Amino acid sequence: MSVKIITVGEDILTANEEKARANQNRLDKHGILTINIMSSPGAGKTSLLLGTISRMKDKCRIAVIEGDVASSVDAEKINEQGVAVVQINTAGGCHLDANMVESALNNLSLENTDLLFIENVGNLICPNAFLLGEHKRVMISSMPEGDDKPLKYPAMFADTDVVLLNKIDLKPHLDFNVDGFKKSVIGLNPDVIIFSISCKTGEGLEAWLSWLESAIKDRKDR
Amino acid sequence: MSVKIITVGEDILTANEEKARANQNRLDKHGILTINIMSSPGAGKTSLLLGTISRMKDKCRIAVIEGDVASSVDAEKINEQGVAVVQINTAGGCHLDANMVESALNNLSLENTDLLFIENVGNLICPNAFLLGEHKRVMISSMPEGDDKPLKYPAMFADTDVVLLNKIDLKPHLDFNVDGFKKSVIGLNPDVIIFSISCKTGEGLEAWLSWLESAIKDRKDR
Repeated sequence: MSVKIITVGEDILTANEEKARANQNRLDKHGILTINIMSSPGAGKTSLLLGTISRMKDKCRIAVIEGDVASSVDAEKINEQGVAVVQINTAGGCHLDANMVESALNNLSLENTDLLFIENVGNLICPNAFLLGEHKRVMISSMPEGDDKPLKYPAMFADTDVVLLNKIDLKPHLDFNVDGFKKSVIGLNPDVIIFSISCKTGEGLEAWLSWLESAIKDRKDR
Repeated sequence: MSVKIITVGEDILTANEEKARANQNRLDKHGILTINIMSSPGAGKTSLLLGTISRMKDKCRIAVIEGDVASSVDAEKINEQGVAVVQINTAGGCHLDANMVESALNNLSLENTDLLFIENVGNLICPNAFLLGEHKRVMISSMPEGDDKPLKYPAMFADTDVVLLNKIDLKPHLDFNVDGFKKSVIGLNPDVIIFSISCKTGEGLEAWLSWLESAIKDRKDR
């Protein structure tokens, strides 16, 4: 097994924040809305991107940065949709950081982009501590993971702008208390927006897409 | 958000391995089979423990170390089963390490234990790099996470003794290629044992329990 050795101290987090601010300034110059998408492995980050891209790509110019420990299977799926995509392989690292995103930005045509998605590494813990330069954070929590996830991974739920409760098509087959889940999330994060969706059936995606369109417009208008 | 700052370098990994060996020697003196259980958040670690404990607790003396970023909801569920449990809260840390496990061992009655489960933090990346003193590693991959997880998180699948493919009761509602999944896992780890299970319905648990009983016996006989 190849283990990337990461030294994380306060100085590193501070340096990361500075780099993240620089990334954000660069994105702001081009009026690009940038969204950091985070979740557990297999919660539906790539499915969300595919469902969103297919419905939005005629309305705005989209680019994607794909973060993975290994492989480029997700980037290939995105690429088939005809949008620009850069793959970052972290070689064992459990989150993206602002330096990695800077390298990816160097490989994208920013003047031809309105909306940039950054798909973080599948992990409910460390990605939260590393700003990348994003304007909004969106986390996906999928129903099969259980309604207790906000209690067990509170920082991620507390620090996001949007929670997408995904795979609601499986609800009839699961013991999942939707009201209890929402109550826990709002308890950690009173300003959060929660959408219930199924990337598989498309249910609930309209509300998410409306939020996204309004966030893109808001960013362009600044 | 409270972030625990962890410095991980080669020296740290080496120090962790030494401490893990010391933990293992201590467990060996008592003939305790120790199993490190790892998975994504919500894949079913606690459900596996509850299902296993209820079927095994009259046959052997079980103890559990519960690792979580926050909360003690899992430990409380385990405690209701009447087995000894110690909760470790990592305060933001994304994996257990051998030092944490040593502290937990100091709080267990080792002379009255045959089988020790260590439920790691829900994470498919970092727990793999930190030995704890375990004799066997068991990872759970749940069907709703998708059949591509071995490609995306290869180190975890490569370094485990057993893969439990959980939540097979949801198979009719998912697009999951069981043969493709198994092929990917075996490609990374030719000696792995794979059991398909549902902690919800109990399907497939007999084979897992047989493996476990034989591993306990093997450890006692040494």
